[in-house]
Amino acid sequence: MSDTTPQGSDAMPGTALPAGTGPLAGLRVLELGHFVAAPFATRLLGDLGAEIIKIEPPGGDPVRQWGARHQGHAPWWSVHARNKRCITLDLKKPEAVAIVLGLVRQCDALVENFRPGQLDKLGLGREALLKARPGLVIARISGYGQDGPYRDKPAFGVIGEAIGGLRHLTDHPPGTSDLPPVRVGVSLGDSVAGIYAALGVVSALWRRDKAGGDGPAPDQAPTQRPGTEIDVALTESVFSLLEGALPEYGTLGSIRQPAGGGIATAAPTNAYRARDGIRVLIAANSDPLFRRLAMAMGQPDLLEDPRFSGNQARVAHVRELDALIGGWTAGFDGAALEELVTQAGIPCTRVFNIADCAADPQFLARGMVRAVQDPLHGEVLHPGVVPRVDGAGFPPRSTGPAVGADNEAVLRDLLGLDAGAIETLRAGGVI
Amino acid sequence: MSDTTPQGSDAMPGTALPAGTGPLAGLRVLELGHFVAAPFATRLLGDLGAEIIKIEPPGGDPVRQWGARHQGHAPWWSVHARNKRCITLDLKKPEAVAIVLGLVRQCDALVENFRPGQLDKLGLGREALLKARPGLVIARISGYGQDGPYRDKPAFGVIGEAIGGLRHLTDHPPGTSDLPPVRVGVSLGDSVAGIYAALGVVSALWRRDKAGGDGPAPDQAPTQRPGTEIDVALTESVFSLLEGALPEYGTLGSIRQPAGGGIATAAPTNAYRARDGIRVLIAANSDPLFRRLAMAMGQPDLLEDPRFSGNQARVAHVRELDALIGGWTAGFDGAALEELVTQAGIPCTRVFNIADCAADPQFLARGMVRAVQDPLHGEVLHPGVVPRVDGAGFPPRSTGPAVGADNEAVLRDLLGLDAGAIETLRAGGVI
Repeated sequence: MSDTTPQGSDAMPGTALPAGTGPLAGLRVLELGHFVAAPFATRLLGDLGAEIIKIEPPGGDPVRQWGARHQGHAPWWSVHARNKRCITLDLKKPEAVAIVLGLVRQCDALVENFRPGQLDKLGLGREALLKARPGLVIARISGYGQDGPYRDKPAFGVIGEAIGGLRHLTDHPPGTSDLPPVRVGVSLGDSVAGIYAALGVVSALWRRDKAGGDGPAPDQAPTQRPGTEIDVALTESVFSLLEGALPEYGTLGSIRQPAGGGIATAAPTNAYRARDGIRVLIAANSDPLFRRLAMAMGQPDLLEDPRFSGNQARVAHVRELDALIGGWTAGFDGAALEELVTQAGIPCTRVFNIADCAADPQFLARGMVRAVQDPLHGEVLHPGVVPRVDGAGFPPRSTGPAVGADNEAVLRDLLGLDAGAIETLRAGGVI
Repeated sequence: MSDTTPQGSDAMPGTALPAGTGPLAGLRVLELGHFVAAPFATRLLGDLGAEIIKIEPPGGDPVRQWGARHQGHAPWWSVHARNKRCITLDLKKPEAVAIVLGLVRQCDALVENFRPGQLDKLGLGREALLKARPGLVIARISGYGQDGPYRDKPAFGVIGEAIGGLRHLTDHPPGTSDLPPVRVGVSLGDSVAGIYAALGVVSALWRRDKAGGDGPAPDQAPTQRPGTEIDVALTESVFSLLEGALPEYGTLGSIRQPAGGGIATAAPTNAYRARDGIRVLIAANSDPLFRRLAMAMGQPDLLEDPRFSGNQARVAHVRELDALIGGWTAGFDGAALEELVTQAGIPCTRVFNIADCAADPQFLARGMVRAVQDPLHGEVLHPGVVPRVDGAGFPPRSTGPAVGADNEAVLRDLLGLDAGAIETLRAGGVI
C-alpha cells in the first residue's frame, strides 16, 4: 500500500454487521434522528464500536437527498449512515410506537433531535422510555434546548451559529467590506452538538455501568438503574467555542470583533495570495518567527521598523504589515512559496481544498481518507475515525443502507417477529 | 432570580474543591497541557464532574496571559482552568518526573498536548505511565497526530483549519472579493480536538470500568487492566466536520467551494444588512418559507418569477435574490426587521455579538451565562456546561487558580509529602 493512494477497500455492504471492535463495542444505541446533529452523534458512537439502529419515516430521512448526487444518490449518505442498521416506522401508528419501545428495551441509549416535546406527544416521553428500559440514556438535541422561553422556536443550523456568537466573528474587520459575514461553510452547530451529545451519552453510561460506585449493587436488579437525560442545544454548542469572549465582556465590557483572516491579538498570521491565486497560510506571530519571515523575505529592515517591533506593535499595524507580506507572496507561485516559508522554519501551509485533503500524505498514512466499497456508488472516499484509539482506525463495517433495508433483520432478530407479522406491518403502512 | 440577569454567584474561590456532582464524579484526570486543546478537554471533563489536576511549568501555562487583561490577569483563565487544581513542576528535573508518576498512579486518565514523542524523552512514555497506573487512559492531542510523515511538523490552530479543509470554505464565492478567506474567529481546531479527546477518554474508561464484559474479572487485580491511548489531531478534528465534501469529491470529482454568507445548495439564506447596520440572518430556504418571505416583503410577484421558482432556480440566481432581499431589509432597523420576519414564521435572528449572547433570555434561563465570583476579578461571566445532564447546570466549583496555588495541597494529600519535603522541592526549583 502506497502513501499516496487511499487505504484499501475495507468496508462491506449489506445488513449483517460484524461486531464493532472499538471501545464502545457492546453498546446498542437507537437513533430517532434526522438531518445532521443526531445522526452525526450516532455515527461517532458507531465509529467507536457501538451498534446503531436508526429509525426513519417510511419516506426516509430527508438528509439522504442532501448535497450532490451520484447515480441518483447522495454520496454523503454512505458516510453519514455508515455502521447503522436502518428501519422504517410511521410513528403516528400505535404499532410503531410499541415497536420503538420494544427496541428501546434492548438498547443502552437513545439519541433524538425532534422538536422538544414532540416524542412525548407520540407516546415516547421520558416515563414510557424509562419504563421500557430502566437506566436508558436519552440524548436530546435541539436548536435552543429542552426548556426555557425559546425552546419551541424553529431553529436551523445557521441560526445556531448566529445566536451562538460565531457568525459575528467570521467576518472581515468592521469597515473593511460591505460583504456579509461568511458561514463557516459546514453545519458547524449541528456537528459540534453531535460530538457533545456523544460525549454526554458515554459519560452517563460510564456512571451507569461502572463496577462499584453508584452503579447497581451486585444484588440489585439492573431495573434499579436510574436513567439520564442529556440535553444539547445547537446554540449552546456554538457558544461553548468562544474561548475568552464572555469573561472578557463581563469584566471589561469589550465586545470581540471579527479579524478577517488574521488573529486579533497576534500578527502576522493570515492567508496570503500567491501569484497563481493559491492562498498560503503563514503564521509568523511571534518575535522569533517574525524574524525568520523578515529574513526569508530579504527585508531585515522590517525588524528595525518600530511599527513591527514586538507583537503589540505588529497588531496595531497589521494592515500595513499584511500588505507588505502580500506584496512579497504575490511574487511566487503557491507551491514555491509554501516550500520557501516552510524551509525558513515558519508554520505554513497552502489552504487545502477537498482535493488537497484527499491527496495529503499524512491523512492517507493515518487512514483519514479511505476508499470504501459501497453497493450504490462503487468506491467512495470515507473520512476515518476521530479519535484514533490504540492506533486503530476502525474501518467502516458497512456503508449507509437503503431506506428500510434492515426492517426484516431487526424486527426478526431483536423482536422475534416472523415473516407474516412483518408483512402485516408493511401492509398496514407501519413500516 | 430574574430571567434577564445572570444566574447567581455560585462558585467559590480557593483550592479545596467540593466533589463534583456530574456523571464523571469519581474520576481523577491529570493534565499535562498548555494553550487550548488539552486544557479545554480537561475543562469539559471537569465540568461533568471529574477531578482535574493540571501540571504547569514553574512559569505557568502561557495561555494564562492570552487575550484581554483585567487587573493584570486574563479573564479567560477564570473559565479555562475552572474546576482544576494547578501545580507546578519543572519536568526537566528527575524529582518532578517521579512526582508525575506518583500522581499518575492515582489518576484514571492523562491528557497531554506536548509535541509527539516529547513526554517519552522526559521519561514519561507509555510504558512508564502504564507501569505506574495499569489501565490508564492516555489522551494525546497534537497538530498532525502521533505518527505519519508529518507528526513532527510544527502546528498552530490556524494551520489545522487550513489543512482540515475548513479555511477554504470560510470565504466568499470565487470572484466575489480580493479579501482573504476569514478565520473562524476562534481556535476551532483546538476546541473540537478537545471535545474529541474528552469523548475518547470517557469511551475508553467506559470499556475499562464497566461491570462484566472485558473489564477485569472479579478475581482479577486492577493491575491487569489494559491501558488505552487516544490520539487526536487538530487537522483531523477539523476534517471530520466536512460532511459530504469528501465522498462527493471521491465519486464526482467535485471540489466544494465557499458560499460566503449563504449555503451552496439552498437559497435564500444569508445575513442581510438592516438600515442601522445590524446583520439579520434570514433562513427562508424552502418553498413554504420563501412564500412567507415574499409575502412579508409585499412582493408576491417573486413567487411567479421563474428565477426564484423552486430551490434549484433560487440557488442558480442567488446573487439577484440576495440583492432583492438586501434592498428590502435596508429599509428597516434591525430590531424591527427581526420582529417582522419572525412574525412571518421564518427562522430569523440578528447576528449576535458577545453582548447579545450575555443578555439573551434563553441563555440566561438555562444557566449558559453565569456570574461567578473570582478572587482576582470579582464577578466574572462564565459559560455554562454543555451538555446539560438531567437538567443540571453544574455551577463551577472553583475558578482558575494562581500558578502553583495547589502545590502544597496536592503534594500533601495525594503523595503524603510533608512541609519540609515540599520546601526542599521548592528550594531545588522542582516546583
